[in-house]
Amino acid sequence: MKIGVFDSGVGGLTVLRALVPRIASAQYLYLGDTARLPYGSKSRATIARYAISSSRFLIEQGCEFLVIACNTASALALEEIRETAAPFGVPVVGVIAPGAAAAAAASLTGDALVIATSATVESRAYSAACRAQNLGAIEKACPLLVPLVEEGWIEHPVTADVVDIYLSELHREAADLGLDPDTLVLGCTHYPLLRGVIEAAVGRLWRERPLRVIDSAEATAREVAGRLGAIPAAEDAEGLVPRFYATDSVAKFRQLGSRFLGRPISEVQLVDLGG
Amino acid sequence: MKIGVFDSGVGGLTVLRALVPRIASAQYLYLGDTARLPYGSKSRATIARYAISSSRFLIEQGCEFLVIACNTASALALEEIRETAAPFGVPVVGVIAPGAAAAAAASLTGDALVIATSATVESRAYSAACRAQNLGAIEKACPLLVPLVEEGWIEHPVTADVVDIYLSELHREAADLGLDPDTLVLGCTHYPLLRGVIEAAVGRLWRERPLRVIDSAEATAREVAGRLGAIPAAEDAEGLVPRFYATDSVAKFRQLGSRFLGRPISEVQLVDLGG
Repeated sequence: MKIGVFDSGVGGLTVLRALVPRIASAQYLYLGDTARLPYGSKSRATIARYAISSSRFLIEQGCEFLVIACNTASALALEEIRETAAPFGVPVVGVIAPGAAAAAAASLTGDALVIATSATVESRAYSAACRAQNLGAIEKACPLLVPLVEEGWIEHPVTADVVDIYLSELHREAADLGLDPDTLVLGCTHYPLLRGVIEAAVGRLWRERPLRVIDSAEATAREVAGRLGAIPAAEDAEGLVPRFYATDSVAKFRQLGSRFLGRPISEVQLVDLGG
Repeated sequence: MKIGVFDSGVGGLTVLRALVPRIASAQYLYLGDTARLPYGSKSRATIARYAISSSRFLIEQGCEFLVIACNTASALALEEIRETAAPFGVPVVGVIAPGAAAAAAASLTGDALVIATSATVESRAYSAACRAQNLGAIEKACPLLVPLVEEGWIEHPVTADVVDIYLSELHREAADLGLDPDTLVLGCTHYPLLRGVIEAAVGRLWRERPLRVIDSAEATAREVAGRLGAIPAAEDAEGLVPRFYATDSVAKFRQLGSRFLGRPISEVQLVDLGG
């Protein structure tokens, strides 16, 4: 079984990292569309165009299952990707619905908060997915968090300040609406790297009611494992290492990606998607 | 005379703004390759590919002169752009050489500092251009400044902190090398919007020797005007407004671009460069 995992950059490696121990016998192909990132600040039409060409590449490489490990592409182009994959009989799972389902399972008050990129928030995809789970949600765009992670300012006072500013605004907004949230969804695959800083700010701001922080990478991996069931191990399953593809500098992908994957990435292949 | 001005985004509008009063009789076409921005974090090959397709578009629209109002494209792809434009007899001016010449004219000590994107700094294009003017230069990548401007955090304490961190590192580096800089080049067209914050940090850090801050937009406009000489005014010159093209959301271009141009942008045309 070949599983394709796609993101605009290296953030989706947090999803791959959650998938590998759950479905160890699969062959993984990971594509980071780094020449055209970030998606989070762009328009729906552009995001859909990029996501479709990326998905098509993975299908051409023989992938039988696609995981859209990019919140922005999942929020704005999941239907278009499914239409692209359907003629090949390739199922597609995004990160939004699993994240919303995990939030609904975790919430006791029925109110959740979501932080994500501008494009994801503007699409209101999380609000819709949460509503389908009887969960109320308010969303907040945090456009500086991705650049801060990319700069490597993970445990950094400036990052702590920026997180504090965004979450304080969200805290005020929730209070103004009279909501009682108990769950915070990390609606971007870069954000799990800032989990420490985010949890510290959450602890300060929501003293009276601690928030549970939901990482959609774990929820998505569970969803994929459930959909695929038990997969017979390939004969050489032990030797299967994920294959990595990037549309821009493979050196940068290796260096930054290792941080997201949690272990070194040795080989990355450069692909041209015609951008 | 049709002059094409190109940038990855809206930052190059600061160059257009400097050009218009100098060469009022020209027809300006401005292209922002917003679907593929930012260039500053990408590889030379990808930047060259994007810059060439963008330049080709402007030539196809009838431009007789090209201004590469993007430091990253000027640093990494100016030769490739010139090769693309040469068969059409279209001259090309970038922002690096004019910026370096302006710094050399301003410096008394012979040492300059340059702040720019990662790709521009890694190319060492400013160091080379300064050396050609007998000016020593040390360069510093400031990858968070573009996202901060795009977020609209212009006069913001976080931006002041980030600028202070980058410039403090540069101050230390210059001191370690025993240099005596008196000039700071803003090597990215987004940075003039942060001039106030940058000048405040410069004033604090370089107390003993004030730095002159050089904006390459002005220097580039002077260079273009010098190259073109007097241009006869078109009969309907009064009615000529610049034409704007973007590869992603025209609404976002209008909104963010007006801040860079210093006046409202009414109409933007969407173009597809095949990304």
